Amino acid sequence: MNRPIITLLTDFGHRDAYVGIMKGVIAQRCPEAIVIDLCHEVSPQAVNEAGYLLETSFPYFPRGAVHTAVVDPGVGSDRDIVCVCAQGHKFLAPDNGLLSAVVAESDVERIVRVTNAEYFLPSPSRTFHGRDIFAPVAAALAQGADPDVLGPRTDSIVLLPSREPTQTADDELQGEVVHVDRFGNLITNIKESALKRFCPDADACDVFVGTVALRGVCAAYSDVAAGEWLALIGSTGRLEISINQGSAAGASRCGVGARVLIHRDNA
Amino acid sequence: MNRPIITLLTDFGHRDAYVGIMKGVIAQRCPEAIVIDLCHEVSPQAVNEAGYLLETSFPYFPRGAVHTAVVDPGVGSDRDIVCVCAQGHKFLAPDNGLLSAVVAESDVERIVRVTNAEYFLPSPSRTFHGRDIFAPVAAALAQGADPDVLGPRTDSIVLLPSREPTQTADDELQGEVVHVDRFGNLITNIKESALKRFCPDADACDVFVGTVALRGVCAAYSDVAAGEWLALIGSTGRLEISINQGSAAGASRCGVGARVLIHRDNA
Amino acid sequence: MNRPIITLLTDFGHRDAYVGIMKGVIAQRCPEAIVIDLCHEVSPQAVNEAGYLLETSFPYFPRGAVHTAVVDPGVGSDRDIVCVCAQGHKFLAPDNGLLSAVVAESDVERIVRVTNAEYFLPSPSRTFHGRDIFAPVAAALAQGADPDVLGPRTDSIVLLPSREPTQTADDELQGEVVHVDRFGNLITNIKESALKRFCPDADACDVFVGTVALRGVCAAYSDVAAGEWLALIGSTGRLEISINQGSAAGASRCGVGARVLIHRDNA
Repeated sequence: MNRPIITLLTDFGHRDAYVGIMKGVIAQRCPEAIVIDLCHEVSPQAVNEAGYLLETSFPYFPRGAVHTAVVDPGVGSDRDIVCVCAQGHKFLAPDNGLLSAVVAESDVERIVRVTNAEYFLPSPSRTFHGRDIFAPVAAALAQGADPDVLGPRTDSIVLLPSREPTQTADDELQGEVVHVDRFGNLITNIKESALKRFCPDADACDVFVGTVALRGVCAAYSDVAAGEWLALIGSTGRLEISINQGSAAGASRCGVGARVLIHRDNA
Repeated sequence: MNRPIITLLTDFGHRDAYVGIMKGVIAQRCPEAIVIDLCHEVSPQAVNEAGYLLETSFPYFPRGAVHTAVVDPGVGSDRDIVCVCAQGHKFLAPDNGLLSAVVAESDVERIVRVTNAEYFLPSPSRTFHGRDIFAPVAAALAQGADPDVLGPRTDSIVLLPSREPTQTADDELQGEVVHVDRFGNLITNIKESALKRFCPDADACDVFVGTVALRGVCAAYSDVAAGEWLALIGSTGRLEISINQGSAAGASRCGVGARVLIHRDNA
Repeated sequence: MNRPIITLLTDFGHRDAYVGIMKGVIAQRCPEAIVIDLCHEVSPQAVNEAGYLLETSFPYFPRGAVHTAVVDPGVGSDRDIVCVCAQGHKFLAPDNGLLSAVVAESDVERIVRVTNAEYFLPSPSRTFHGRDIFAPVAAALAQGADPDVLGPRTDSIVLLPSREPTQTADDELQGEVVHVDRFGNLITNIKESALKRFCPDADACDVFVGTVALRGVCAAYSDVAAGEWLALIGSTGRLEISINQGSAAGASRCGVGARVLIHRDNA
């Protein structure tokens, strides 16, 4: 059995039937698909947050999956919809920068502008493209449609400014918090590789966020006692500031965008 | 492949396992079903809200789908459970008015009172009919059981008072907010057809809600700048009052039940 | 069609993609599985709450289901992961007491320590075993792997202190609130059988929680008028204190851990 996979990532929340309706459209057109919710609680219109969630999730899905991301403040405007083929996956999203991180980190094979209304619901609304365009196009891709039937190829796609950490002094690396998870972990844009390049010895640095200063980088929450702060490389391969069995976001009052500094010891 | 579809719409929320348990019962009796969540965050016992969500969702599902709606303040009382066949869909709900909008807008083919305990779990509780009655009956319908096996046909069903807008003066149409979605959009009971009958020129009217007055009706959120108010026909075909990329509910402090007025220009 | 069933019970919430990622791993390894969410809004690290939800849910699933519970404050420490076979079901959880209630109430057939890394993702993290260990092991079990391949059998498993009610006087039974559901119902650890043993006549007792005193035990919410308090045996077979169409938790300001007393009449 080789069932196609469609993932859904939106800011539609759970108090409406918007996601259910998208699944109805998919069930009508590709009933054999496995439809998996990535997340629907993206903050309204938070394109960056959606990009982070998609970038850190898609590698755990089988190649061939169709990832459908609808965080779309420009719905109904003249913004485009794009289909990006990369790493054997297909990504469908508004052309608003949501796919920046995926594009930056992947070998992009093809980008197509989604313009062919034959694949949309009839008379699409200008307010709910998730239902009228994204769902039926995702179903078509899941059924094996070649992305080229959806519209013309393109080289250009909207990219948001890079959020890579920067070295601000010989002994200082500056990053920022890019996501706060349910546990209150402060997840940063500092990847393990960048941290190791800057400071090969994980014990020989200090990590600062808000008024919190932490010595060294741990490997697991349980490396410190319950209630204690720690910095560690989290499951997304990024530096994370946490409290074991507590909420670092709550205790530090830091959130997305908060500055994070790493100071390495002088050799 | 022709897999049956069951949708679930409840006020059970996400902090309990109630929905998961219903899916367990369905999996036991109809493992081939595609089970789709419409919404589980209906406000507790909000029968009207559930009716709105169901009415605006079901047309996007394949004919033959079994829509199972359990918002059921009278569970365990002598209220009935009904199965309504309409527009090629099957609807299963407490007979408490939840299906009023579906019945009002559809060609009803058949209504059956669900009384045949052969299709229930043994010894059904008087507190969780979702698990003990709705789930196994939905599974039976999904497996092709004829609704007539569930109980006797009936002509009567509980209908809630109509919530149609009313013309309150020669130049005034009065409606109300019937739903606030995740984005804070104020969705009204004024359908596009009623609005067009009252005021054929969408630019020649004023829309009032709370202390907000808006000129004309737009077609997309992006017709105004981010942060600006607008009235538009939303994706459910109803007049909606919104802030582009903002929350109209938050800014206006209006919610479900708030009065909405349309004044048309004198010709 | 005999599709395997995997249930998921976590404290991962809905604002991250953690649950979606687990489903991606499962889809890669066992695409034929039906994956059912039991609950993901368990309070962070609330092992007891997860145990309650699992105990009251699993009997409604087909035998052979693989129940995967990841509420895991000790992730990355030397705590074990166990697979318990009981009542024809398989349970996968950290060895932290989460399975106490399941083990106490069931005929346990086998307990295995999950140590065989062949069934894990390569290079498992120390922070997200849900993705790296639980998901792939659940997929293997769903595909029919014998639990013995996962690691050595064991007799011992961490058990939390029993939360059975105690008879504190000749005419007094003392229990506690173990769960508050979405409707604000206060669900206790007093099971119907224990209550009947203590007080065979359901009308001949008083129930106390906080400052609320209730006479007798009802059978359905609708046995009292809307807005009225009642005690009843709820759908999980436990004594519950409720307000018909209202929130007992909100009105009483009682929550998990609150003491509940039953006084029976003198004969």
